[in-house]
Amino acid sequence: MRPRLARSAFREFSGISTRWMDNDVYGHVNNVVYYAYFDTVVNSYLIAQGALDIAQGAVIGLVVESGCRYDAPVAFPDRITAGLRVTRVGNSSVRYEIGLFRNDEPDASAAGHFVHVYVDRHTRRPVPLPGPLRAAVEALAEPAAPPDGQISG
Amino acid sequence: MRPRLARSAFREFSGISTRWMDNDVYGHVNNVVYYAYFDTVVNSYLIAQGALDIAQGAVIGLVVESGCRYDAPVAFPDRITAGLRVTRVGNSSVRYEIGLFRNDEPDASAAGHFVHVYVDRHTRRPVPLPGPLRAAVEALAEPAAPPDGQISG
Amino acid sequence: MRPRLARSAFREFSGISTRWMDNDVYGHVNNVVYYAYFDTVVNSYLIAQGALDIAQGAVIGLVVESGCRYDAPVAFPDRITAGLRVTRVGNSSVRYEIGLFRNDEPDASAAGHFVHVYVDRHTRRPVPLPGPLRAAVEALAEPAAPPDGQISG
Amino acid sequence: MRPRLARSAFREFSGISTRWMDNDVYGHVNNVVYYAYFDTVVNSYLIAQGALDIAQGAVIGLVVESGCRYDAPVAFPDRITAGLRVTRVGNSSVRYEIGLFRNDEPDASAAGHFVHVYVDRHTRRPVPLPGPLRAAVEALAEPAAPPDGQISG
Repeated sequence: MRPRLARSAFREFSGISTRWMDNDVYGHVNNVVYYAYFDTVVNSYLIAQGALDIAQGAVIGLVVESGCRYDAPVAFPDRITAGLRVTRVGNSSVRYEIGLFRNDEPDASAAGHFVHVYVDRHTRRPVPLPGPLRAAVEALAEPAAPPDGQISG
Repeated sequence: MRPRLARSAFREFSGISTRWMDNDVYGHVNNVVYYAYFDTVVNSYLIAQGALDIAQGAVIGLVVESGCRYDAPVAFPDRITAGLRVTRVGNSSVRYEIGLFRNDEPDASAAGHFVHVYVDRHTRRPVPLPGPLRAAVEALAEPAAPPDGQISG
Repeated sequence: MRPRLARSAFREFSGISTRWMDNDVYGHVNNVVYYAYFDTVVNSYLIAQGALDIAQGAVIGLVVESGCRYDAPVAFPDRITAGLRVTRVGNSSVRYEIGLFRNDEPDASAAGHFVHVYVDRHTRRPVPLPGPLRAAVEALAEPAAPPDGQISG
Repeated sequence: MRPRLARSAFREFSGISTRWMDNDVYGHVNNVVYYAYFDTVVNSYLIAQGALDIAQGAVIGLVVESGCRYDAPVAFPDRITAGLRVTRVGNSSVRYEIGLFRNDEPDASAAGHFVHVYVDRHTRRPVPLPGPLRAAVEALAEPAAPPDGQISG
């Protein structure tokens, strides 16, 4: 079993506020909701960088694969900090990895990933990453392999 | 048609971060999701006041009625500020009203309410409001009728 | 307190399957999720009638008001039958009322409503109800006032 | 790239009804929602088999890993049929694989999996699979490796 990820494994951070209904009947954030956090973290970053325009942009990102390893529970009303990094930049696709940190804890409660393929909004065919998008994701890529390796799916 | 509510109509404020999947196919936060915000705002306040213990408390709040008037759209990645007030405190029940303010706008984009009945966790029968809960909700009650009146359902 | 609604108060019925994560920490379907059922019932009906085209239609429905009275709990894995009726047809708007019936129970567990205003997809300005939409909603309208009256918000 | 899964790869099937708000701004079911389908399919099966009691059972299942490969879009109001199989039964854990089939299509639109660890409800420590649960999951296990192999995460 791989060790839990540390905050130092990530390049960019953002806060997520949990919601009452994120908790399921067992009293913790439901496994499904983690993916809503991942989606939000990645798209928020791209929008803030001017690299994605949900409503009007010619290029949109479609998720073709996702995964998560749940290492420790989180629960509303915890605050969560999400760490973000990029481990692969292809011609049309990007692999994002996300760590979720509960309150002030040093080790990630969950390690997730997803792969976006960028497509033309209308034809839904893959396109090369536009310049601003490529710049935004390359800024999150590690110059060298991180010590704890890629998060496997 | 009633005017949109102002921030001054509320007693307590908290921030809500929108999520990518809050937006529906028409590009705005789906009408359903507003109620997830309402739930979160009220329960967060009660927990922060020590008036509600989700996991262990003897008394829990059940929603018996809710409603919302949608005055203007909001959309991810907007920041939302929720205003909270209490307009009725009964023996076992409380009526909460919530205004949602988009980014720095002065007028509420939505005006919602819900009525909690407080019950014994196990029997699910109504109980008188425990002291700390009564104190917490009375702190949100207006001393006088607000100029724009109660939000109707 | 108004009596619970009977199945005979409704004109059209459809099945809803509950989901694991519909249940909240108290073991019942969360109050928010009821509105996801309402949205689905109304839009499914309109699509089946050929009266709404989500992706391409020139006219879309925006929710301007909604409400729900919760009379009895439901929980995953209950089956729910939703009853639908229309209590007001305006020039551009329609008031839908929905009853949710748990498994084979005769009385509604919840009584909800919402008001759609139909707008031009691009300008988002109200438009007169297109013919097929008007026909679809008038088919759900009561010829006379139902004995248990309108569901108040 | 692995081929899309066929219905014959699965042992048990159940229907899922999509909801209006499952669709995201790009007009298809959001990637997050697939995991809500997976959760529902597995827990529904276990409940129907008498192998899981959400409210009272001494043993509950916690998700420790999940993943999904998205092969083709689905969208409300599509009907979805979920296929279910088990590819690993451990002492305390089970790996479930789920295929989602859109309307009457022969090939899966998505291939997902998750791993449940079964724990004592109160201590949250892993426990050996209770007999009825073991019987229920072994009924879904393939006698031989399916031709298209395990769904990787």
